[in-house]
Amino acid sequence: MLNPHESSPTCGNPIQKAQSNKDLHITLIGTGTIGLSFAAFHLSHILGPSQLTIYDTRPDVTQYVEENISNFFETPPSTASISNIRIAGSLEVAVEDAHVIQESGPENLEWKMKLWEEVEKHAPKDALLWSSTSGIPASQQAQNMKDKSRLLVVHPYNPPHIMPLLELVPSLETSEQVIQRTQDFWSKRGRVPIHIKKETTGFVANRLAFALLREAIHLVNEGVVSVGELDQIVESSMGPRWAVAGPFKSYHAGGGPAGLEGFFTNIGGTVQEYWRDAGTVNIGDGWEDKVFRQANETYGTVDINERDGITRRLLEVLEEEKGKRK
Amino acid sequence: MLNPHESSPTCGNPIQKAQSNKDLHITLIGTGTIGLSFAAFHLSHILGPSQLTIYDTRPDVTQYVEENISNFFETPPSTASISNIRIAGSLEVAVEDAHVIQESGPENLEWKMKLWEEVEKHAPKDALLWSSTSGIPASQQAQNMKDKSRLLVVHPYNPPHIMPLLELVPSLETSEQVIQRTQDFWSKRGRVPIHIKKETTGFVANRLAFALLREAIHLVNEGVVSVGELDQIVESSMGPRWAVAGPFKSYHAGGGPAGLEGFFTNIGGTVQEYWRDAGTVNIGDGWEDKVFRQANETYGTVDINERDGITRRLLEVLEEEKGKRK
Repeated sequence: MLNPHESSPTCGNPIQKAQSNKDLHITLIGTGTIGLSFAAFHLSHILGPSQLTIYDTRPDVTQYVEENISNFFETPPSTASISNIRIAGSLEVAVEDAHVIQESGPENLEWKMKLWEEVEKHAPKDALLWSSTSGIPASQQAQNMKDKSRLLVVHPYNPPHIMPLLELVPSLETSEQVIQRTQDFWSKRGRVPIHIKKETTGFVANRLAFALLREAIHLVNEGVVSVGELDQIVESSMGPRWAVAGPFKSYHAGGGPAGLEGFFTNIGGTVQEYWRDAGTVNIGDGWEDKVFRQANETYGTVDINERDGITRRLLEVLEEEKGKRK
Repeated sequence: MLNPHESSPTCGNPIQKAQSNKDLHITLIGTGTIGLSFAAFHLSHILGPSQLTIYDTRPDVTQYVEENISNFFETPPSTASISNIRIAGSLEVAVEDAHVIQESGPENLEWKMKLWEEVEKHAPKDALLWSSTSGIPASQQAQNMKDKSRLLVVHPYNPPHIMPLLELVPSLETSEQVIQRTQDFWSKRGRVPIHIKKETTGFVANRLAFALLREAIHLVNEGVVSVGELDQIVESSMGPRWAVAGPFKSYHAGGGPAGLEGFFTNIGGTVQEYWRDAGTVNIGDGWEDKVFRQANETYGTVDINERDGITRRLLEVLEEEKGKRK
């Protein structure tokens, strides 16, 4: 019997853990880094044997999982807890009594289409079907399925056994109920599931990161800063800031009583000047009203003291932790 | 006599504090948010009276500073420590015996040009001259100066009494020695001063943040996510990740033994696809060799366990701190 507190890789709320379904059966397909990381996460949240099933076509799958799963824990899990993992010998056996099936297989459309076609034949009718893909929309993966309403992308931020974000990206055919059940599953486990409303290329987190990465490459390529200096800049400014309050909340706070609109009144010229300089395409007209209104409705007046208090603590911990490891 | 430990707004290394020059005289010009935040930082790092001078043309400057400086401390500073601040009645008196002079005045080129022309007449020949500007290059500000070698931009990430980053942006005429002395000043105080090699529009930190902000606005405007959801995404993914390891280091780690080049081999297609979709201008040819080589030289093989250990601790602290304040 697994003790979820013995070797927990996460820091979730124990109350939320206790609410986990004792009879829930989770099946993971694929044992790459993402698959094993999800396995580690679930191992520390399930309560009994055979609740976690792994399926992979590699012939040495049992040995491979046994040898590698420990890498995803701070304190290695006990043999007993690893033995709670069931390795399935066939896809049929893997999915036949599963409530949740998540694939983290190759980023290959044909492979995924074929997989879901097979899964659909053997899985219970109400099993949730999730793909970890970072780029292939559910609408494409579901092409050969009879019931396309159960499939959606559940894209983690690597590694999922540590990072809280899950991007839920349904197709137009995914049912509301399936989206809701998926959100509940992750929220109960202390994670941050966000429903992405459109199947945008790269979803949201990667789009944001790649926008910044493009500018980062440009600055290094132009000799403005080095790779190491650029990272130091981010680690000592945006990183800790955005860990505490995202970009909109931060700029909304920066604008004082007038919020995000005030920020753009004060510094919008510089922002526009940079956008021009970077040659970005026009963002379109009329975004201001929508975005400013949402910022006001979401945040009202930001408590700067709260933000600063959390930031101080965060920076102290970073200095301590990085110092310890030097 | 100020006790720097009594009401420290920072968490700097005490050894570094003790190395601070006991006779150092710092003059701050301007008492807006940035000016007062710098004042709070210095107040907790100087050792005696009259080492910190403030100059502002507002008639109620003494009362204004007394009433507002406490807002920049977690524990309000003692009256004795506030009385260590000297309010100068004229610019001449403010700068005549200063070793460091930093202006945080209006973002107005004429004003800054005039200021440095005046400062130059009265300040000691080797005083360091810094501007907090977020957008007006030192080369422009120095136009009327006889000796342009001492002026550079020292751009903080707001608020400077908390955030470690200082972007040092010299003009082509700023001397190497002045840049070095400025770096030493901030390094000794536990801060992260980064020398920006070219006077780029928006410098580096804002360019990176505004690149991401543009994409964030686009996604909200298109209805892909809301303002609040976008912030939640960043707070639970890039924020904590980049607080621990900047974007290049993170992607270099993500590429496994092949580093950043391996990352682009694996996922470069998705990155390019997004860049195309976002309509960004071509980043130019040949950046790959330079950027991949720098990443290898700077990081070699990233210790993922170290990164993950720090990240776990950071996420725990964030959950604790945000929970406390709910």
